[in-house]
Amino acid sequence: MNAPSKLYERVADRVLHLIEKGVYPAGRRLPSVRALSRRMRVSINTVLAAYRWLERRGRVEPRPRSGYFVRIRAAGSLPSPAPLKEKPVPVRVHRLVQEIVQATSDPKLVPLGSATVDPRLLPLARLNRILSSVARRDPITAHSYADPAGFGPLRIQIGRVAAESGANFGPDEIVITSGAQEALHLALEVVCRPNDAVAVEVPVYYGILQAIESLGLRAIEIPADASEGMDLNALRMVLKRHRPRAVVAIPTCNNPLGSSLPEDHKRDLVRLLAQEQVPLIEDDTSGSLHFAAVRPPPAKAFDTHGLVLYCSSISKVLSPGWRVGWIACGRFRAEVEYRKTFRTSANATAPQMALAEYFEGGAFGSHVASLRKILPGQVELMSRAIRRSFPTGTQLSSPSGGFQLWLKLPSRINALHLYRLALQSKITTVPGPVFSARGRFGHYVRLSAGRWTEQEDAAISTLSRLVRQMQSGFGVPLPADISRSS
Amino acid sequence: MNAPSKLYERVADRVLHLIEKGVYPAGRRLPSVRALSRRMRVSINTVLAAYRWLERRGRVEPRPRSGYFVRIRAAGSLPSPAPLKEKPVPVRVHRLVQEIVQATSDPKLVPLGSATVDPRLLPLARLNRILSSVARRDPITAHSYADPAGFGPLRIQIGRVAAESGANFGPDEIVITSGAQEALHLALEVVCRPNDAVAVEVPVYYGILQAIESLGLRAIEIPADASEGMDLNALRMVLKRHRPRAVVAIPTCNNPLGSSLPEDHKRDLVRLLAQEQVPLIEDDTSGSLHFAAVRPPPAKAFDTHGLVLYCSSISKVLSPGWRVGWIACGRFRAEVEYRKTFRTSANATAPQMALAEYFEGGAFGSHVASLRKILPGQVELMSRAIRRSFPTGTQLSSPSGGFQLWLKLPSRINALHLYRLALQSKITTVPGPVFSARGRFGHYVRLSAGRWTEQEDAAISTLSRLVRQMQSGFGVPLPADISRSS
Repeated sequence: MNAPSKLYERVADRVLHLIEKGVYPAGRRLPSVRALSRRMRVSINTVLAAYRWLERRGRVEPRPRSGYFVRIRAAGSLPSPAPLKEKPVPVRVHRLVQEIVQATSDPKLVPLGSATVDPRLLPLARLNRILSSVARRDPITAHSYADPAGFGPLRIQIGRVAAESGANFGPDEIVITSGAQEALHLALEVVCRPNDAVAVEVPVYYGILQAIESLGLRAIEIPADASEGMDLNALRMVLKRHRPRAVVAIPTCNNPLGSSLPEDHKRDLVRLLAQEQVPLIEDDTSGSLHFAAVRPPPAKAFDTHGLVLYCSSISKVLSPGWRVGWIACGRFRAEVEYRKTFRTSANATAPQMALAEYFEGGAFGSHVASLRKILPGQVELMSRAIRRSFPTGTQLSSPSGGFQLWLKLPSRINALHLYRLALQSKITTVPGPVFSARGRFGHYVRLSAGRWTEQEDAAISTLSRLVRQMQSGFGVPLPADISRSS
Repeated sequence: MNAPSKLYERVADRVLHLIEKGVYPAGRRLPSVRALSRRMRVSINTVLAAYRWLERRGRVEPRPRSGYFVRIRAAGSLPSPAPLKEKPVPVRVHRLVQEIVQATSDPKLVPLGSATVDPRLLPLARLNRILSSVARRDPITAHSYADPAGFGPLRIQIGRVAAESGANFGPDEIVITSGAQEALHLALEVVCRPNDAVAVEVPVYYGILQAIESLGLRAIEIPADASEGMDLNALRMVLKRHRPRAVVAIPTCNNPLGSSLPEDHKRDLVRLLAQEQVPLIEDDTSGSLHFAAVRPPPAKAFDTHGLVLYCSSISKVLSPGWRVGWIACGRFRAEVEYRKTFRTSANATAPQMALAEYFEGGAFGSHVASLRKILPGQVELMSRAIRRSFPTGTQLSSPSGGFQLWLKLPSRINALHLYRLALQSKITTVPGPVFSARGRFGHYVRLSAGRWTEQEDAAISTLSRLVRQMQSGFGVPLPADISRSS
């Protein structure tokens, strides 16, 4: 959102760019501090600050007397890609997801399963003041139906914010929705007919699976890895063999992987799908939380055919409770709007008015910049705590943004079992199997570093103790109802 | 909501009850003032006040030197019922409805096509104060996801408010929705599968047709009349012949008819559908705006099998812009909740918190009572203006509640043509054909008395002039685009 303000950030950004382009692959030694200082014409101290910044974000690591290396980002890759042998399958995740979402919403539990950041990191008082003020100044508008496509001034502001990320769409392409969840739903609904196949990267955010399930579609899974996201070669094969009606992806700050597709892969993805005339449904909910000084552009930035349906929301960065999301519909605008109108008439008006005013006030850029300073630190602290306490064989993602960690546990550990035991210890987690239509990831778990306090630190210790007990096979009574959903 | 506070209101209510039970059918002479005074042991003045109250509400009329008569409620009855000869049909109203809804939302037009009351009749300042206060007191809850089924304290309050109308359902049966529109949608979605037949009364509120269309269902139309609502004999025949998967109805203060099903018909309707195991989807959005001193119970009050899905909202009585509605789901609760969760996660939290506090404060009863004092007057003033200015052959509904009038124009008048001409004169109307899946009601129009000022009075004159010009066949240039949707 904001340009990198400090010199060392600009240097770090340049190095990150080279890493993401593949100039320095994982495990490779980076230029020495002295060499980089000469090449970029900056001081040694600036290069050191840049490398330390990248280290804090988990992208490079110092090795004693050898300099800095590109960190190997483990976990998340599927054991075998094999999409060719698979057929699209109906999705049946809803009972388990509903149970987990309900458990996670209990504020008395430690929210390692949370999908949102610590509310103390959000400008709630300011949002409340603006909400009060717009409703008082114009009560009639605030209590009337909004334009079904969304409050006009808000759509203008969203177009402006999106332009800063590199995406180009105007207010007329946008329809305001009840969070990104309704946006994904509407996108799938207008593009697909019941029983159609939809290609998704796996692990896949369970909200996408819910939408596929509720519309009676079938999912075909494309392997993704924790560093570079969706495997485009696998996608090519799936396009040829299964002719999916749409592809759904989270190309930037993937949930749960934390991966971001390199920029040239994004361009290739959009071009490939345009050739095949297959719409891309892009979820960019966490894209603005990328750890680089400048967030990489979304895939929508490369859309010249109106075939990318771009979904986003304020739920990760401002307020989940206001339920404001949007979809830039490309060529599907009329169809999306009429389905939104039929379904809910329009979003609540007052939060839309307030959000338009908040965006217009210009504080959003610096707020997001501050989240992007704080969250990498929280992710790093949680990663350290996990590396310190979990048993050997645990692998951990190294997210490029957002606040989710994706853990591969030793293979004896059943993530659903761990989920239920953790709940008994008042800790929420999200078990791996809800991130796949085929129930994959049986020993994976997603943990949220959206809040990091002593409570979360202690919860990580508790989890590691539970994992070790499960590993040793004693001392862990099976909860009575474990059989129900395993 | 409130018990009738004045003696004459109690007397009027008793008379209305007898009229609705059919003891005094339309056109029948009512007991003389003297006879009623003796029978009910009240003074002659009280009976006179009661009859005048009923007269203002369009239910009785004095005839010189003959006493009071039950008014004949014209218009709205279908030319021929003939449901037996018809098959369920797919619905295709959306382009026209969308165009009308968009036109109607322009605040610069005179809103005779409006679906809402004059916002100056609503307690907006109070709602705003409460909204500010709850968000300030508990910002974290206000900005977090609400329980997908809805904010708990609000569901408790809704159960309490419903109990006052005679319906019995607890907070656990309720799911909060984005207005009654999403409630209707969810109800149809959980009960039906694509292509199922759904029975609706006609004229039928176009929002119901939109939901049927968007879910790919087919509609079978049951005739309804402007006084007593749905024809239950016709429904019996349709149930036998077409086995519809659900029945959707507005049994109290019907939109657009203004009719209310007599209480014993409601009981019969619920019993009949329970025998056939067919769910009733009841839209009670305007039920609390019934003109009687005590609103009649909704059909849900007679539901002993959990087969009535009761949908309502605050859009007609408090705030369309907050988008709060609800559904009491009967035996379909789990299915409704998971579909709501999948679709939009939850409603916006802050308006739910504020509404719970508003209901708890106890001002809702007296606010609705005041609407029920004001709206019959507005309806009566608009009715008079129409009777005064429209040509012979115009027939007019005499609503039992709400604020909509349903007009049958002389048969040469095309309502779509009138709609477009009126728009050119900056007046919105809703043409009859959107109230039927078969495009019936070509010369009917719905007009809203939700706002009554000099502007609306003048707009009625303009409309009547347009109608007379259309009738005479000259002087009315056809708008260029009339062919598009006729």
